[in-house]
Amino acid sequence: MNNKYMEYALKIASEYFYLKEVPVAAVIVKDEKIIASGYNNIESSNNATLHAEILAINEAHYIGDLQSKYLTGADIYITLEPCLMCAGALFLSRISNIYFGAYDYENGAFSKFEIEKKYNNPPNIYGGIMEEECSSLIKGFFKELRNGNK
Amino acid sequence: MNNKYMEYALKIASEYFYLKEVPVAAVIVKDEKIIASGYNNIESSNNATLHAEILAINEAHYIGDLQSKYLTGADIYITLEPCLMCAGALFLSRISNIYFGAYDYENGAFSKFEIEKKYNNPPNIYGGIMEEECSSLIKGFFKELRNGNK
Repeated sequence: MNNKYMEYALKIASEYFYLKEVPVAAVIVKDEKIIASGYNNIESSNNATLHAEILAINEAHYIGDLQSKYLTGADIYITLEPCLMCAGALFLSRISNIYFGAYDYENGAFSKFEIEKKYNNPPNIYGGIMEEECSSLIKGFFKELRNGNK
Repeated sequence: MNNKYMEYALKIASEYFYLKEVPVAAVIVKDEKIIASGYNNIESSNNATLHAEILAINEAHYIGDLQSKYLTGADIYITLEPCLMCAGALFLSRISNIYFGAYDYENGAFSKFEIEKKYNNPPNIYGGIMEEECSSLIKGFFKELRNGNK
C-alpha cells in the first residue's frame, strides 16, 4: 500500500469535480506502475453502470498489457468503497488488493452487504485510506448539488 | 414474462456454444421488443468481467434509444442466475424484472449471497425459467471441457 496512489486517485476526482458526476476515481497499480484509471462516468455516458472501477478494469485490459483475463498481482485504489457491481467485478478479476477511501454505509459491498464473508478467496480489502480527504470531496459535491451549483 | 425471450437467449447461447466460453446469454426486452443482447465474452476479450449481462446492458445504452441512464420498464432474460457483479449492475440500472434460467448455487447473487434482501427496491426476480434447457446447455459445455473438446 502506498498513499501516493490514493493521492493520484484524489487528484483525478478533483480534476473532474466540475462535471455533474459524483466525484469517485479509481487507479489500478501493478509492479509499482499505474496501469489504468477511471472516473465515475454515469451522467456523461447516460449509463448508470459506468462506475470508476469498471472503467479502470476495462482500461487495464485494453492498455495494461496484462496478457491475462485476470488482474492478479494488481491493486486498486478507489476514493469510495465499491458498490456490489464493482466489488463483484473486482472479485471476478482476481485483483490482489482493494484499497478504498471513504466508507459507503448505504451502498457499500462490504459495509452494507458483507459479500466478502461468503466469497471464496476474496482479495485483501482495506478501507479508510485517506478517508477524510476522500469523504470531503464527495460531501462537497452533494453540497454543491443541494445548492443548485451542479 | 414471455418464454419466447428465454428461448431467444437460449438460441444465442447455443449458437456460440462452439466458442470456449461458458454458454450464457442475456436478452433485454422493452415494450415487447428485444433492444439488446449479450453473450459471455471472457475468453474472447481476455477480460474476466465481460459477462453476457454487462454487454447487454451496455448495448441497450448504445443502441437501445433509451434516452435515460436507467433501464426502468425493461426486463432481462438470462440463461443463468447472475453473479454479484451482474446483479449489482442490473440493480443500478433499475431494470424492472430479472428472469433467469438455471440457478447458480455457488456464485449466484441471490441463491448464494441473497443481496436482494438488503437492497432497497430491488427489481422483481424470477428464477428457474426454462431451467432444464438452460442448465443442460451449461452442463454440456463443462462435459466437453472435461473431455478435452474445448
